[in-house]
Amino acid sequence: MRSLTSVPTLSPEWATLVDGVRRKRDESIAAVMSPESIPLHEVPSNVSQVPREVLPVQVCTVTETPLPELLQQLASREVTAVAVTEAFLRRAALAQGLVNCVTELLPTAALKRAAFLDDYIAQHGKPLGPLHGLPISVKEHMAMADWEVNFSFVAQIGTKATTDGEVLRILWEAGCVFHARTTQPQSLLHVETSSNIYGVTVNPFNTNLTCGGSSGGEGALIALRGSCLGVGSDTGGSIRVPAGLCGIYGMKASSGRVPMSGLLPLTMGREQIPSVVGPMSATLEGLELWMKVVCSRKTWLKEPTLLPMAWRDEVDWLGKTGGSSKFKIGVMWNDGVVQPQPPVTRALRQVVDRLRVHEEVEIVDWKPHDHSRGGEIFARLLFADGGKFMKQRLDQAGEPLRPLSQWAFNENPHCRETTLDELWEWTGKRDTYRHKYANAWNVTATGVDAHGDPVGCVDVILTPVAPGVAPPLDHSHNWLYTSIWNLLDYPAVSFPVTHADAGLDPRNDLYTPQNKLDAENHHLYDPQMHHGAPIALQLVGRRWEDEKDLLAASHIG
Amino acid sequence: MRSLTSVPTLSPEWATLVDGVRRKRDESIAAVMSPESIPLHEVPSNVSQVPREVLPVQVCTVTETPLPELLQQLASREVTAVAVTEAFLRRAALAQGLVNCVTELLPTAALKRAAFLDDYIAQHGKPLGPLHGLPISVKEHMAMADWEVNFSFVAQIGTKATTDGEVLRILWEAGCVFHARTTQPQSLLHVETSSNIYGVTVNPFNTNLTCGGSSGGEGALIALRGSCLGVGSDTGGSIRVPAGLCGIYGMKASSGRVPMSGLLPLTMGREQIPSVVGPMSATLEGLELWMKVVCSRKTWLKEPTLLPMAWRDEVDWLGKTGGSSKFKIGVMWNDGVVQPQPPVTRALRQVVDRLRVHEEVEIVDWKPHDHSRGGEIFARLLFADGGKFMKQRLDQAGEPLRPLSQWAFNENPHCRETTLDELWEWTGKRDTYRHKYANAWNVTATGVDAHGDPVGCVDVILTPVAPGVAPPLDHSHNWLYTSIWNLLDYPAVSFPVTHADAGLDPRNDLYTPQNKLDAENHHLYDPQMHHGAPIALQLVGRRWEDEKDLLAASHIG
Repeated sequence: MRSLTSVPTLSPEWATLVDGVRRKRDESIAAVMSPESIPLHEVPSNVSQVPREVLPVQVCTVTETPLPELLQQLASREVTAVAVTEAFLRRAALAQGLVNCVTELLPTAALKRAAFLDDYIAQHGKPLGPLHGLPISVKEHMAMADWEVNFSFVAQIGTKATTDGEVLRILWEAGCVFHARTTQPQSLLHVETSSNIYGVTVNPFNTNLTCGGSSGGEGALIALRGSCLGVGSDTGGSIRVPAGLCGIYGMKASSGRVPMSGLLPLTMGREQIPSVVGPMSATLEGLELWMKVVCSRKTWLKEPTLLPMAWRDEVDWLGKTGGSSKFKIGVMWNDGVVQPQPPVTRALRQVVDRLRVHEEVEIVDWKPHDHSRGGEIFARLLFADGGKFMKQRLDQAGEPLRPLSQWAFNENPHCRETTLDELWEWTGKRDTYRHKYANAWNVTATGVDAHGDPVGCVDVILTPVAPGVAPPLDHSHNWLYTSIWNLLDYPAVSFPVTHADAGLDPRNDLYTPQNKLDAENHHLYDPQMHHGAPIALQLVGRRWEDEKDLLAASHIG
Repeated sequence: MRSLTSVPTLSPEWATLVDGVRRKRDESIAAVMSPESIPLHEVPSNVSQVPREVLPVQVCTVTETPLPELLQQLASREVTAVAVTEAFLRRAALAQGLVNCVTELLPTAALKRAAFLDDYIAQHGKPLGPLHGLPISVKEHMAMADWEVNFSFVAQIGTKATTDGEVLRILWEAGCVFHARTTQPQSLLHVETSSNIYGVTVNPFNTNLTCGGSSGGEGALIALRGSCLGVGSDTGGSIRVPAGLCGIYGMKASSGRVPMSGLLPLTMGREQIPSVVGPMSATLEGLELWMKVVCSRKTWLKEPTLLPMAWRDEVDWLGKTGGSSKFKIGVMWNDGVVQPQPPVTRALRQVVDRLRVHEEVEIVDWKPHDHSRGGEIFARLLFADGGKFMKQRLDQAGEPLRPLSQWAFNENPHCRETTLDELWEWTGKRDTYRHKYANAWNVTATGVDAHGDPVGCVDVILTPVAPGVAPPLDHSHNWLYTSIWNLLDYPAVSFPVTHADAGLDPRNDLYTPQNKLDAENHHLYDPQMHHGAPIALQLVGRRWEDEKDLLAASHIG
């Protein structure tokens, strides 16, 4: 496990700062669980079952209680917030030892908060809010007042947040406990999780594989049940990829639904590809609860980028598909660029076969509209400064580029410094692409309503989260199965379906790759190495139909 | 009147093309009304009453019928669409002779459409839609399939639109007739209306003054009742300024409510300051009808920039102000940059005095939040390319810059070519400014609701449309009373209140201007020259509270 946290080449001053951050992290772990009690030398590459072997049964019971039941137990005082917090802290400490997913635990603050909540419910006879006593983990870059927020930039070590991100404030007011902060990669622009400050976070199902990223710490921690609900963020797949590769649930809403304050300093003004904060959870109920709590406030009065639309619970999303009474699912087997690896296609087939038997469901094929072009537009806009901003921050501390930063900024043909005119031109191309994609939904209509607007369109698209199983470290070069929905600003929910199985998913040696990305993806698949790794799918909705998308996931996922 | 249409210095080829466009315009007028019947040599500088003196009484009766009544008459076949169209065409032709507001009339197409509608209602016994038979005028730059769309650029003469703008399509499907296309200024970035193709459009109440702009043709045409409902667009005041200076009504909604296709080629990708298409009308009912018809379609399925929100008629906007049961109006007497001229302040006082007697209304002062800074951010973003794009289009045809283009692009300190980094920086400043302004509303709350969100805030802001009466031609340098709401993306309705009156509105010779813009505005006011010119005010709502803002205007305006 040493390699996960090897110290990078840094000047002595910076190395000292990195050491300090790691020491602080390790102390926060040691406060919960002695390092010796973590049997790192004995563990297999699949560490997903280690917590059950190592931790006391009552810790496992609490941390594996389904979320609605756990909240019910907390609200009825069947369990205390302190006991629940202690259990999750303990399991998170072990998870850190196993996969290196935590930037720090917050035992003192969390237990103080939990004790407050226990007092509160004792005094008032009712919970503080719908999340009363629930421990929640948070990706490091989300501002927490008075805590360091370094975004995994060495040069930013020691920077403190002055206010809480609005999402955290809302979750807090709903009664939660924040117990852990989690890792993210250098620059936040990898779909893996590797940084010079915290090292590499790996996949709980196979520590030789990536956990995905950039919200990889959340993905790995929740997969190991060191948390059951977390806060991630997604600009190109950063919630859905780690959720998918780690076998948990994640949602990237459309922009304008979830408050963004607390993340703004990094992305301020860069509105061409919107970043979205969102939930990651061990269960689908976690996503639902998080979205309802966070989106039921009138936060648009504070953050004018937010749509003036609370979570639309009352709409009959699944019944009202208009001219067709069936719920229509478009299945995208392949994005036209990269053929998914065999276990992914099997997962799709499995879900489609299950859905076909439902009379109220109609399955059609979804024809991807030139995703290759979409990928180019996405990358030209996301990397419109040629990586300059990121490289400057790295240079400030003389940080070496991690392999995927090297790839993103120096080897990526779409990472080019852009003039203002070019930015406007590519933004215009984005809008044209969005129009065309909207039309691709509209032409699936079965008719028009009284006003002439289309009805009976495809309701959601069912598609892979990634073209394959979790790659070995530093090999994640293809985000297109997720980033295309960021470009389009569509809501997307990632949900686990199955695990790769060497017996069921042989390599297709007859396949002829169609392009370089396709070849790379094809060759990355290794039935033996990938055996047992999670396989997930994604349900994608039309822009701002976040409620429908999540509701559909609750029926299908 | 010659000077209004003097031919600019252009190469012979381009001059020939301009001549051709003008000839086409003049022929379209002559098809409706012989030029000799327009008594141009006899008219006073206030031409607003000329139509009543010159036109047959039945033409005046039809064109001055209040809009709801006119639609009722059309729907009940009390009048025919052909008769109504003929009347408005006739009056528009006269308006063109008086103030030069039309780029072309559409008599053939309009009368064909009107005849179709008369047939339709005869056959079906019911109107085609809520706008059955109503003539509507349209600013030239809005795409109409198969018609020239030159945006007032000489270099673009002869360019034909391939499809209808979506707003026009919706109005058409609601049964309207398009009868006139109207003038706009060179570059569309003046709040006056002067171009090398069509000349200068002037104010019907005083032809020595500007009609405002950029939708100045609509303002002047509707003021003379050559149309009762029109389509304009607004990026910095372009609907509200001409509506205000011409004594009619205009609304700029928040972005994302009104479809924008048909305008996109010019602004594609330039999303920092959103342009908005909107209604201009002789009556407030016109604005309401237009907004309801246009915003009640699910156009977001086609244009993904649109919010998925039909016009919200069912919400009790005025009753539900939360903790306070009163409707709270914030009055902004002065924007902190430029003191309004005396007639404007009198108009504000007049409306406030009228409102104070209503028990259900609470009047408070609105403190402008650093509008000077807002103006800088607006202009830096609007002119982020240093006017390059516009100047290139003008250079293509060797067009001389009109005086206000010269001012906007060559004398404006905020018109500077910007790098990508600077654009992001200023976009970030815009977002920070929007946050601060939202907070300025929130601190007017009287309490919080069960979730802790503010209630009892100011509902709408009442403020001038412009700091003064219509300036003499080529003097409109201050848009800040309108453009600040574009920067903030707030809905704003302009409504007429009174007319400047030399007796009631003496010059305040004791006033000491606070800055250069203030001095310029102060010195522009001339009680004699301005006597009789319209004075308007503006009601401004929070972002996306378009329905509330318009409803408030219907009570106050």
